[in-house]
Amino acid sequence: MSTPFFELIHQSKKSKARVGRIHTAHGVIDTPTFVPVATNGALKSVDMVHANDLGIDLMFANTYHLILHPGADVVAAAGGIHSFIGRDRPMITDSGGFQVFSLMYGGVTQELKSSGKKQIKSSVLSVTEEGVLFRSYRDGSPVFLTPESSVQAQKQIGADIIIPLDELLPFHATSSKMRSSLDRTHRWEERSLNEHLRNPLYQKMYGVVHGGLDRGLRALSARFLTEHAFDGYAIGGSLGTCSDDMVAMLVDLMPHLDPARPRHLLGIGDLCSLESCIPLGIDSFDSAHPTKCARHGLLLVDGGCIKIKQAQYKNAHVPVDSECDCMLCKNFSAAYLHHLFKAHEATAHTLASIHNIRYMVKYMARMRSAIMRDEI
Amino acid sequence: MSTPFFELIHQSKKSKARVGRIHTAHGVIDTPTFVPVATNGALKSVDMVHANDLGIDLMFANTYHLILHPGADVVAAAGGIHSFIGRDRPMITDSGGFQVFSLMYGGVTQELKSSGKKQIKSSVLSVTEEGVLFRSYRDGSPVFLTPESSVQAQKQIGADIIIPLDELLPFHATSSKMRSSLDRTHRWEERSLNEHLRNPLYQKMYGVVHGGLDRGLRALSARFLTEHAFDGYAIGGSLGTCSDDMVAMLVDLMPHLDPARPRHLLGIGDLCSLESCIPLGIDSFDSAHPTKCARHGLLLVDGGCIKIKQAQYKNAHVPVDSECDCMLCKNFSAAYLHHLFKAHEATAHTLASIHNIRYMVKYMARMRSAIMRDEI
Repeated sequence: MSTPFFELIHQSKKSKARVGRIHTAHGVIDTPTFVPVATNGALKSVDMVHANDLGIDLMFANTYHLILHPGADVVAAAGGIHSFIGRDRPMITDSGGFQVFSLMYGGVTQELKSSGKKQIKSSVLSVTEEGVLFRSYRDGSPVFLTPESSVQAQKQIGADIIIPLDELLPFHATSSKMRSSLDRTHRWEERSLNEHLRNPLYQKMYGVVHGGLDRGLRALSARFLTEHAFDGYAIGGSLGTCSDDMVAMLVDLMPHLDPARPRHLLGIGDLCSLESCIPLGIDSFDSAHPTKCARHGLLLVDGGCIKIKQAQYKNAHVPVDSECDCMLCKNFSAAYLHHLFKAHEATAHTLASIHNIRYMVKYMARMRSAIMRDEI
Repeated sequence: MSTPFFELIHQSKKSKARVGRIHTAHGVIDTPTFVPVATNGALKSVDMVHANDLGIDLMFANTYHLILHPGADVVAAAGGIHSFIGRDRPMITDSGGFQVFSLMYGGVTQELKSSGKKQIKSSVLSVTEEGVLFRSYRDGSPVFLTPESSVQAQKQIGADIIIPLDELLPFHATSSKMRSSLDRTHRWEERSLNEHLRNPLYQKMYGVVHGGLDRGLRALSARFLTEHAFDGYAIGGSLGTCSDDMVAMLVDLMPHLDPARPRHLLGIGDLCSLESCIPLGIDSFDSAHPTKCARHGLLLVDGGCIKIKQAQYKNAHVPVDSECDCMLCKNFSAAYLHHLFKAHEATAHTLASIHNIRYMVKYMARMRSAIMRDEI
């Protein structure tokens, strides 16, 4: 019998947390895992040679950005994303839908301010059953994204895990709109799956679970995806406005998911959320949070976060974390990093990002060990 | 007999070009050499771990910037600049004077426009025989720089080669002003040398040759420095407005310099100038030019310069230079670098800078070989 895509290594006796292995054409992903975001096929401020040393099992790239530049055809001509960006380990891409729709509505904060009524300089020209027509943020040219064209682009890009096109609603959508949007999303996901299965290659497709904070819709969405041949779940759509909303939703949702398939939580990767969600059985988390923090001078360390720009680090001639094995901590002092930030040197972002990503990778390894010991 | 500071390896039979070795406490510098500029103790966009792999023999840091942040005392507390920035190979610092005075007058272009009469938002409060009082560009606080305080700061910073404080005049200075300024510069250089020799440590001091384009003043300056115990020459002051001016000045000046001491040309490092100046017997060149070019997407290759942002590189799935051994060329395609520039990723600057510095290091090695064969 061949190895399954998702191999359950250990189910904690203490919670729903689990340790697993995802087998891809570009190697194994140990779960739970943190998935750094390389929007344009590049981590912000960290070149791929450095990145390859950080122990990142899975990396996220955004189809929306890649189809606008350099174009999926260019990535294909390069031999696929792994070859193009210089990474031979697993990659995941999304469908492009999230960026298209989030540019349409703005973020949750903007929505809360405007009650979701205003569409701020929308780049979306029309949404029909066929797909979504939007303007390129680069040159204003119209781009038509359909479930099929998104999958085709993701075939050209060639990530190991791909995601079907979904429709996103503003946070304030009415429940009747929520229901009709969920139905459309499911039709789009089915079309995506069919397009994918015409030529699966080495790729796996995760279905996106929608339904916002409505537990009935979430259960419905879970059932729909489980009944289809998706290789895993990506939990998307509105996750509410606070961590409690999200956790409550996940507590209800998780029992509806097939335990034999991996579960990815889209766009969440801060440490508080990881602590809450790993015990619920989430297997992977993508987020730009640790690298964004890094660029603001926030360094992740056990028990909190170092604000390296503070004056107290001016003469801190010791590593940021003397236990850490990252390039920053092995080679440079906190005082030097403080200086690089104060002098506005770009390498400040590089070194801080390397530290934070490495921290996340090691944090996840610790989480896996703790689950193996049933401590989580 | 102990090894001299400067060891002449070969004097070309074809020109005044020469191959040498400068022996410092932090290792040997093969000359002629290109000296990348790490203004704040950091190459722009290239972290020091990467930089340490590029074969850079000598690196330049700016005392002006380091005394304003983090402060020479902080660098001293870190154990000196090598330890602070994570580089164990030779370093050179300037006096701070150049930045103080160039902020006073603006660049040559600004001067040519304004005939040097306007002082554009001058940060210099006063220049007296004692030294120069200026405002910090960081917080506006007054800083008094004297020959002695510059040397003391450079002792704290701890570079292998240090430079005495000099006075810079605007390009349009009258010849009587030039002469009185040269005399003051010589008095400042003598005070600097005395201060240095009170506690030489492992450091060597290069005297700065001034005199602008006046061949008599240049000869006078050369004689003054030669008569004093400076370990080498740094050719500074106004080098004119074009390469021809500079080369004509150097042709006249070089015979006045002691051949047993190394000659550094301050602030010049473009390939055209190197080609003209190496045959005149210049041993080292510092310049931010190759890294500035890199950040504008200009990649140095034999026979010219690649403009990587041009559309022709969108599908160039080959290295920028297939013969090059740099991290960019060994790991990434021209198409990927083109994409990183177009997507405004910071790593574009990193990879391009690494390539250009590596190019300069290899270019200088080729120059040394050619001199050894008397081809230059």
